[in-house]
Amino acid sequence: MFRLRAPIVLPCDPSCAVLRDAVVDVDSSGRLGYVGPADGAPATDAPVRSLDGILLPGMINLHAHSPMTVLRGMGGDVPLMRWLREIIWPAEAKLVPSDIEAGMLLGSVEMLRNGITTSVEQYFQPDHVVRAVLATGGRMVLGPAIVDTAGWSWRAQLDEVSARIDVDGLRPHDRIEIGYGPHSAYTLSPESLTMVAEAARARDALLLIHVAESQGEDAAQRASHGSVPKLLAKIGLLGGRVLAAHSVHLSEEDIRIFADNGVAVAHCPGSNAKLASGIARVPELRAAGVPVGLGTDGPASNDDLDLWEEMRLAALVARLSAMDSAVLTAADVLLMATRGGAEALGREDIGVLAAGRWADVVHVDTSTEAFAAGLSVPDEHLLANLVWGAGARNVRDVWVGGEQVVADHEPTKVERAKVQAQAGAVTARLRRS
Amino acid sequence: MFRLRAPIVLPCDPSCAVLRDAVVDVDSSGRLGYVGPADGAPATDAPVRSLDGILLPGMINLHAHSPMTVLRGMGGDVPLMRWLREIIWPAEAKLVPSDIEAGMLLGSVEMLRNGITTSVEQYFQPDHVVRAVLATGGRMVLGPAIVDTAGWSWRAQLDEVSARIDVDGLRPHDRIEIGYGPHSAYTLSPESLTMVAEAARARDALLLIHVAESQGEDAAQRASHGSVPKLLAKIGLLGGRVLAAHSVHLSEEDIRIFADNGVAVAHCPGSNAKLASGIARVPELRAAGVPVGLGTDGPASNDDLDLWEEMRLAALVARLSAMDSAVLTAADVLLMATRGGAEALGREDIGVLAAGRWADVVHVDTSTEAFAAGLSVPDEHLLANLVWGAGARNVRDVWVGGEQVVADHEPTKVERAKVQAQAGAVTARLRRS
Repeated sequence: MFRLRAPIVLPCDPSCAVLRDAVVDVDSSGRLGYVGPADGAPATDAPVRSLDGILLPGMINLHAHSPMTVLRGMGGDVPLMRWLREIIWPAEAKLVPSDIEAGMLLGSVEMLRNGITTSVEQYFQPDHVVRAVLATGGRMVLGPAIVDTAGWSWRAQLDEVSARIDVDGLRPHDRIEIGYGPHSAYTLSPESLTMVAEAARARDALLLIHVAESQGEDAAQRASHGSVPKLLAKIGLLGGRVLAAHSVHLSEEDIRIFADNGVAVAHCPGSNAKLASGIARVPELRAAGVPVGLGTDGPASNDDLDLWEEMRLAALVARLSAMDSAVLTAADVLLMATRGGAEALGREDIGVLAAGRWADVVHVDTSTEAFAAGLSVPDEHLLANLVWGAGARNVRDVWVGGEQVVADHEPTKVERAKVQAQAGAVTARLRRS
Repeated sequence: MFRLRAPIVLPCDPSCAVLRDAVVDVDSSGRLGYVGPADGAPATDAPVRSLDGILLPGMINLHAHSPMTVLRGMGGDVPLMRWLREIIWPAEAKLVPSDIEAGMLLGSVEMLRNGITTSVEQYFQPDHVVRAVLATGGRMVLGPAIVDTAGWSWRAQLDEVSARIDVDGLRPHDRIEIGYGPHSAYTLSPESLTMVAEAARARDALLLIHVAESQGEDAAQRASHGSVPKLLAKIGLLGGRVLAAHSVHLSEEDIRIFADNGVAVAHCPGSNAKLASGIARVPELRAAGVPVGLGTDGPASNDDLDLWEEMRLAALVARLSAMDSAVLTAADVLLMATRGGAEALGREDIGVLAAGRWADVVHVDTSTEAFAAGLSVPDEHLLANLVWGAGARNVRDVWVGGEQVVADHEPTKVERAKVQAQAGAVTARLRRS
């Protein structure tokens, strides 16, 4: 066990309290002990590491397809459905399992270096995705993708996930949780979605699904079923642990359906803007009591796995949408990126620096221009400098479950240059073929 | 003189050409010579520095109040006019000249480190602002602020700028151009604006002014004068070299007035979103032939002086506004941040890597995750990785007029820690008073 001590600790409790001269205790199992002012900390024989700067919980990337780092930069100036059909799906069809592992390794390294300790992934080849994340030392909730297109049996994919959970459990490893990743209501039939939902609910597993992302999807489902949420409610998909990604096009009634059924939302402002999907109604969702966290979406559409940018974008697009500059403060979006993600997942072991949770901790370097005013400024000022002025480049050290996985900006468990070269070789092969 | 050689050079010509294995020659006066493929370069005895990565022109920040780094983080979750009246203007009233110099030093260091070599500044205490920029080695177009509020005589401020230009010339130094900075049509009378415009036109000086930034300003001027552009046209302000910052609320007719009068626009998507001012009609402005570049606005409202974020934001908000993901490509926004800024200023000596222009050059480190695919990918793919995946953290070296002002991420002519401490002391004093 060890103790970290820093001039500022942000536990990300509901009030977004700013603790000054505080400590974070990590026990031998990788869980947090005391988190609070140094003056008042229990006596300890553990080594104490004093750090300049700010400590905060590892961020939670609530929606990603991180193996797609190998597709980063391919297309992207075309509408969502064309981009998927003409560029991404054909490229994905050429990926072999080791390609996906290489892509996930790169994505995981990038996320850790940006201060993201947990990501929620929806992708193929779960064994390879898991192996990559365990190699870097990150944490993940994985919903193996379930799709229904030519050459893929959604039923076989569903059964494979269920068998995996039945054999190894929902949490086959401290750092890994397995859920179900049915792609969407426009790529899967109502019957298949119903069966996926039943399987997930029976196992108390998370179900990750894209909901009402694009205008076209929304219009089609609205014409046929009233709306995507109405369709999902009708076929019995809601009610368990459901995480609805994007959820851009929601009516008041749709928001009420989410609130009544405990559905959480993974808000992806960068992807939704780049692909011209629209602006999700985050203030209204929050007001209705729907848990909302932040996601980057896949690196083929965003293009970096950087939740600092998503924090700022969440506030910026909400303000443009409401034409109100008081919507979503720095504290609001910081909490969305941390504890909001944990709430959306129904996880009480991550997202907050509090006793008993995993010691997923980010150390922010405050020696840059953004913090020229120093750390003695009032709380609101400090949070503004952190959220609006700093960024991923300020992430210096990262711990997951008490294990240091980033030290002085570089991953400790894998070699970044090698990881990049492996992923780059995959992209080069896709480009040639 | 010397030669830089790199695997990729982006001169930022109108086609956004990608030169591979290319060189950039810098002559003894700090101007560019040959820029083109290494195969075909003239023989030289000059030292050749081979660099990994990408070379591009220094970016042009077309609208900034950079001394306001000392106010960064103060307020910001309130509407524009309240934020100005209740927080910013009272704080600015307490600034002494050396505070403004300290703030500009910090802003200039931050911009250079982010790859911005020229900024267009509107602020008080011009001698101090100039001294700060000359100290860091940056380049600037400065429009000393002209306002008309209690205790300030707009006439004295106007005459001071005219006298400055009449004595020292429009370009008192290679790196400095002086213009006029009347704040806006809502803080200055029509009579004063007319006189400023006459003075600027008589000297062929740039006139920088805020135009139609907020909904409230737009509504008031629209009710009284038809619109801000119509008012400016009526009082004879247009016609010379005019740079209209923000220009968020423009009708088709307003856009035509800008196009007919050669008015250029400094687009500030980050500030306009954070303050809920709105989304400027950039595609329509560009289609009408209005030169459009990118600005950060002051660091009290944005909050970092980072044009990489503004490039992405420009594309993101335009796509949301048009609901079209093909609006503003990576190449479009890269050109807006470089040659577009030069065009908006009517400057043919910056913004592009071409013979005869100043050697303002940025060296982008491509060893990070964003470039895992390598530099051999097709041009469009490379530009996407640069604009969407990389960022200010990738700026490694910067030259201005052939002088290296950033080396391995740090300023060469001033000590960053000292600059930050000086600015921080100003903020601390403002906080105490």
